[in-house]
Amino acid sequence: MTGKLFVIGLGPGSPEQMTPQASAAVAASRWFFGYKPYLDRLELGPHQTRVASDNREELSRASAALAKAAEGETVAIVSGGDPGIFAMAAAVCEAIEAGAAEWRGVDIEIVPGVTAMLAVAARIGAPLGHDFCAISLSDNLKPWDVVEARLEAAARAGFVIALYNPISKARPWQLGKAFERLRSILPPETPMIFGRAAGRPDERIAVVPLAKAAPEMADMATCVIVGSPETRTIPRDGLPTLVYTPRALPNR
Amino acid sequence: MTGKLFVIGLGPGSPEQMTPQASAAVAASRWFFGYKPYLDRLELGPHQTRVASDNREELSRASAALAKAAEGETVAIVSGGDPGIFAMAAAVCEAIEAGAAEWRGVDIEIVPGVTAMLAVAARIGAPLGHDFCAISLSDNLKPWDVVEARLEAAARAGFVIALYNPISKARPWQLGKAFERLRSILPPETPMIFGRAAGRPDERIAVVPLAKAAPEMADMATCVIVGSPETRTIPRDGLPTLVYTPRALPNR
Repeated sequence: MTGKLFVIGLGPGSPEQMTPQASAAVAASRWFFGYKPYLDRLELGPHQTRVASDNREELSRASAALAKAAEGETVAIVSGGDPGIFAMAAAVCEAIEAGAAEWRGVDIEIVPGVTAMLAVAARIGAPLGHDFCAISLSDNLKPWDVVEARLEAAARAGFVIALYNPISKARPWQLGKAFERLRSILPPETPMIFGRAAGRPDERIAVVPLAKAAPEMADMATCVIVGSPETRTIPRDGLPTLVYTPRALPNR
Repeated sequence: MTGKLFVIGLGPGSPEQMTPQASAAVAASRWFFGYKPYLDRLELGPHQTRVASDNREELSRASAALAKAAEGETVAIVSGGDPGIFAMAAAVCEAIEAGAAEWRGVDIEIVPGVTAMLAVAARIGAPLGHDFCAISLSDNLKPWDVVEARLEAAARAGFVIALYNPISKARPWQLGKAFERLRSILPPETPMIFGRAAGRPDERIAVVPLAKAAPEMADMATCVIVGSPETRTIPRDGLPTLVYTPRALPNR
C-alpha cells in the first residue's frame, strides 16, 4: 500500500502569494511535517495532524514523512517559498535514494511556490532582470572555500547574486567575509538589497551600496541580492527607489 | 493624475499555479498589455481591454502601458512565469528611467509568480536543490561571447544552470554551441532536463545525459536545466525517474 507525499511550497508568507495548487494540496493532506514556523501558517482541521521539527532536521523529517506515506497515508511536507530552492524537495530525494525500497513507490507531488528572491525583487523593481544566480551562504553543508569560489566566479562573470541563508547564530562571520570578497571584485556603488518578510506585514526592504553593506542588516530570514555592475537605481519623488538590471548588455 | 500599473506574473500556465495576488490584480485592471499568448490566458470582462504586441516589443509595450497609467488608468502588463525573470519588470524600469518625468510618479506594483525553472524542477525532483544560476541564451540583447563566458564560469564553479530562451527561429545555432561548450567542462553523464509547458495539459519533460542532449529537444517555450557534477538520478519502477542535486557538497 503506497500513499501520497506532497512537498509544498507555501510562498514567501502572504496567503495572497500561495498558489491554489498549494492550498488544494494542504486541504487534501492528513499529516503535516515541517519546520514549526511554516506549519504555524496553516489553518488545519481537526482531522489533520502537525509534526513539527527543527530547521536543521530536514533528512529525518523527510524520512518520517516518507515512512508515513508508505503506510498509505496522504502526507504533506511544507516549505516556505519554493520547496526546490534550498528546501525540502532535495532532502526528500536524498531520503528516497538512501531509504527503504518501498519509499520509491510513494507517489510524490512537488508543488512549486514563489521563492524569496522573486518576492523581494518584485518589491524593489527588477534586480534579477538579467542573468543571475542563487547561492546558499551556509557552510554547514559545503566547505566555506567553495562558497567563496562561487561568489567570486559569479561576481566576475557579471551575474546578479541572490544569497540565501545569509547569517545565523551559528554562522555569524560568513556574511561579512562574503561582503569583503565581493568588495574586492565589484564597484563600491553596486546596489545591495536586504529583503525580509517580503509581502508580509513585517516586511523590511533596504537598499545600500556595497561599500556600506553590513552583516547586521540581515538575519536568518533575509534574502540578500547583490547587484551586478549593470544594476541601476531610479530615484522617485515620494516613492521608493527602483532597482533593476537592464535586459541588455551592450557590446563593449 | 497618476494611475496604477500592475506588472503581473501569471505563473507557468496552469490556473492552479497563478497566485491569488495575480488574480486580484487582473480583476482590478482596466487595460491589459502583453504578448498575445499570455493575454489569451485571461478571462476578461466587457469593461476590460487587451492591447496585444509581439514578443520582441517589450520596451514599446512598457512605454505604452506607462503612458496609459499616467493618464490615471489602472493598467496591467502580463508576463508568463515571474515578471522579474527575463520578462517585463526590467523593461518597465528601463522605460521609466528613459521616459517622461510623470512616469516616475506612477504607482507600480510588481506581482511575482512561479517562474518556469521552478515549475519544471518540481515535475522532476529537485535539480535546483543546491547553488544554481539562470542564463538567457538569447544573444539579441548581449554578445554571444558573454553568454559562453557565463556558461563556462557557472559550469566550472559547480552551479546547476537553468537556460531561458534556449532557441528560436532567429537563433537556431546557439543552443548546440552551448551544449558543445558544456561538454568540454562537464561529465558526459550530467543530467539535462528539457521542460516544456510544465503543469499544463501539453507538458513535455525529458531527461537525457549531456552526451545525448540535442538542440531539437527544445523550442522557444522550453526551459533547459543543466545539472552539476553533483546532480543525481533515482530510477523508480513504474514511476518517472527523479533528478536532484543534493543539499550537501562533501569536503573533497
